[in-house]
Amino acid sequence: MVVGDFAHEIEVVVIGGGPGGYHAAIRAAQLGKEVAIIEQNKTGGMCLNDSCIPSKLFTEAAGRIQKAKEMEFFGIHVNGEPSIDLKALQARKEKVIGSLHQGVEALLKKYKIQRIQGTASFISDTEIGVERQDAFDKYKFEQAIIAAGASYKLPEEIPANNERIIFGASLYRLEEIPKHLIVYGSDYITLEAASVFASFGSKITIILDQEKRDFSFDVSINKELSRLLKKRKIKVYKEAKITDVNTLEQAVYVTVVTSKGETAIEASHLFTAGKQSANTNMLQLEACGVEKTEDGFIPITNTTQTSQSHIYAVGDVTASASLAVEAIKQGKVAGEQAAGKNSEWEPGLCPVVVHTVKPIAVVGLTEEEALQEGHDILISQFPLRANGYAALSNETEGLVKIISEKETEVILGYHAIGYGAAQMITAAVQVLEMGGRMEDVTYPYYPHPSINEAWLEAAEGLLGKAVHQP
Amino acid sequence: MVVGDFAHEIEVVVIGGGPGGYHAAIRAAQLGKEVAIIEQNKTGGMCLNDSCIPSKLFTEAAGRIQKAKEMEFFGIHVNGEPSIDLKALQARKEKVIGSLHQGVEALLKKYKIQRIQGTASFISDTEIGVERQDAFDKYKFEQAIIAAGASYKLPEEIPANNERIIFGASLYRLEEIPKHLIVYGSDYITLEAASVFASFGSKITIILDQEKRDFSFDVSINKELSRLLKKRKIKVYKEAKITDVNTLEQAVYVTVVTSKGETAIEASHLFTAGKQSANTNMLQLEACGVEKTEDGFIPITNTTQTSQSHIYAVGDVTASASLAVEAIKQGKVAGEQAAGKNSEWEPGLCPVVVHTVKPIAVVGLTEEEALQEGHDILISQFPLRANGYAALSNETEGLVKIISEKETEVILGYHAIGYGAAQMITAAVQVLEMGGRMEDVTYPYYPHPSINEAWLEAAEGLLGKAVHQP
Repeated sequence: MVVGDFAHEIEVVVIGGGPGGYHAAIRAAQLGKEVAIIEQNKTGGMCLNDSCIPSKLFTEAAGRIQKAKEMEFFGIHVNGEPSIDLKALQARKEKVIGSLHQGVEALLKKYKIQRIQGTASFISDTEIGVERQDAFDKYKFEQAIIAAGASYKLPEEIPANNERIIFGASLYRLEEIPKHLIVYGSDYITLEAASVFASFGSKITIILDQEKRDFSFDVSINKELSRLLKKRKIKVYKEAKITDVNTLEQAVYVTVVTSKGETAIEASHLFTAGKQSANTNMLQLEACGVEKTEDGFIPITNTTQTSQSHIYAVGDVTASASLAVEAIKQGKVAGEQAAGKNSEWEPGLCPVVVHTVKPIAVVGLTEEEALQEGHDILISQFPLRANGYAALSNETEGLVKIISEKETEVILGYHAIGYGAAQMITAAVQVLEMGGRMEDVTYPYYPHPSINEAWLEAAEGLLGKAVHQP
Repeated sequence: MVVGDFAHEIEVVVIGGGPGGYHAAIRAAQLGKEVAIIEQNKTGGMCLNDSCIPSKLFTEAAGRIQKAKEMEFFGIHVNGEPSIDLKALQARKEKVIGSLHQGVEALLKKYKIQRIQGTASFISDTEIGVERQDAFDKYKFEQAIIAAGASYKLPEEIPANNERIIFGASLYRLEEIPKHLIVYGSDYITLEAASVFASFGSKITIILDQEKRDFSFDVSINKELSRLLKKRKIKVYKEAKITDVNTLEQAVYVTVVTSKGETAIEASHLFTAGKQSANTNMLQLEACGVEKTEDGFIPITNTTQTSQSHIYAVGDVTASASLAVEAIKQGKVAGEQAAGKNSEWEPGLCPVVVHTVKPIAVVGLTEEEALQEGHDILISQFPLRANGYAALSNETEGLVKIISEKETEVILGYHAIGYGAAQMITAAVQVLEMGGRMEDVTYPYYPHPSINEAWLEAAEGLLGKAVHQP
């Protein structure tokens, strides 16, 4: 290793080229800063290369194969049963990722952002080192943005890697469809995994982690999701504890204990997303004086500042984000702050979108949370089966639920499962961010016929005005 | 004809059971009024039985067959080319309409709304007669809501009905796919007709009516739509005048004159939506003192009142609506007014959604309109090909365009073509209705990856902040 004596100078250095990092870098560059990004792997980060993009390609493919099976509804003839070729889908994945990756690289070039390949570690609160093969370069910075992301760790109850145990991103690298996939967890990654491989033909068993009593959505969404999974013959173990995992050459045996006793489930594979662990170990944060929590995550302020005010952190590496959408938001804020602009992010009104058998999209308070916070609330729920567009498009599964505060009529939460939820949620976020009241939602025009009208009628239902409420 | 001497008494009588009428009736009933609906055909009106619902089923089917052809993108194998069985689709249409019709009837029953079958005509400003076969009944009303709708008339340049001339709703009753369909017009009905039958395999030629220079959207949407139609080998005649239509047994010949001279187009069929004509002839409006325009439409106020303040009118029969969404809105207002509540509708912020080859959804001012109104504007346009979700879902055609006022940063208009536009437009309407500014649109969280981010980046582009702007 050759240690360069000369420290290159750069105004803003960004550590990590994932969505948080590249949004921060580009925003700072847009505002006139000279910026460099240090990335040890590929720009786009885990989101582009391993999780968000691959998983959404797979959930789209799952949705399409589902639609292919429903063509008869529209009088469309397709010969035989449509089938998925996982190798072809993998090839498509590589193409999509490749092209998006090129896109990110082109943007960095457009904004004259220096790309530094290698592993970063702080030397002081104004210097950072980058190790790459035989070289070690030093950079002097004015401001740094840490966007180093997180890795996934296997939970203790699952034994170390084995070909029957599919862990994290490797799920979307499979080239063969598992015969019977046990999915362990309750987050969106788990649910999407279950939905995708169910559509591809795997038998699916879900075991909720941490002995959870139910999925983590509003009670009405949990109920509808459970119904849809049951209809698709997906067994869900709730309030269950894994007591043993035994992998053999041809199968994996998972023993679960529920209130009904002990059950041994035989499957071909077991998938779990794992637990996020901040990528702070290599960064030598002690050298720059940035504090981290016991778990290794970096606490940040609403301006994304760490305990060192000229060093920012965004995304999974922080104690304040676990979704790419949060990383992007914080990245923009950090980029603006680094460029001297006052900018803030707030937690709370971040939509959660899960591309399950039917998409789930939620934002704001659940019924339970609203009550816990002491709100006197109104609740309204509208089933898609009462919506005309849903009827004609064979999309009658699902519902929209809206929660408002009784006295002020302010909307507190939106919870939807079914066709269009992923797109419609933006209208909901908009309303919540603008402090919208019931009338703000019921007054505007909604296209007819449209799935959007289900959202209107959910809102109208708060006052018992929904015309099509069954 | 037997004229009953006894006049039945009813608080609110609604003439017409289409979307405007039944929304009015139900809203009035929800507010405690005793209501009757007079309908000569089937409840649900033209929208349910002839236009909105059938056309959306067909555009959905067209979208699905398009998706079936794109399965390879996702590694999904389908044997052979998917094909549409128009008879099977017609059977589905009957089922969907039948079930929605039953739904409307069930709602009327739930709200104890009296159903009167027959043709209505006013006797005085408090009495209405209903003719049905051999009977004629008289009803005394306190308030009336006219929701009699409109019919379509053939434009002069098209000769009277002939089996080669497909007019209005009969398009969605075809049982065979036209070989070559000439589509004459420029409204959403025309564009949907062209898209549907192009997807079903017809050769399509579009002739814009009234010698129009282009489609009637914002210039950027017109341009993208033209590009998409060209890509699908759909020829569009702009600034063209039909000078002759000649129908023979096997073909129709349409002569058009453009700046390039005269062309004779041979096709199997010619479709035109026709021009709306208010259904006011049979109503004997002179008996109740409700005024109409020279064209026969009823002028209304923002409270849907006619020249007689206790008689309201909504939907196509008025001079203020041509879309079902407007009829629904006005219907609710009329129902509320009739029940003594103060309620108003406003024109202007009504979204237009067209289910073309790629959906079009627009609301607010176009670039041209904003300039004409004297606004100093900012314009931003984001292509879907620069959006990650569009890339992974093979939906890269289209764009989102946003127009804002420079000084106030108030958003003036949204114009979109492409995946998700029909659902996302509700967020746009919401923003316009709430007088949202640029920051109201760029501040909230947008799910990642999602098509919604294209809308965010279109807004960010107004200030040159869109990270993925190519």
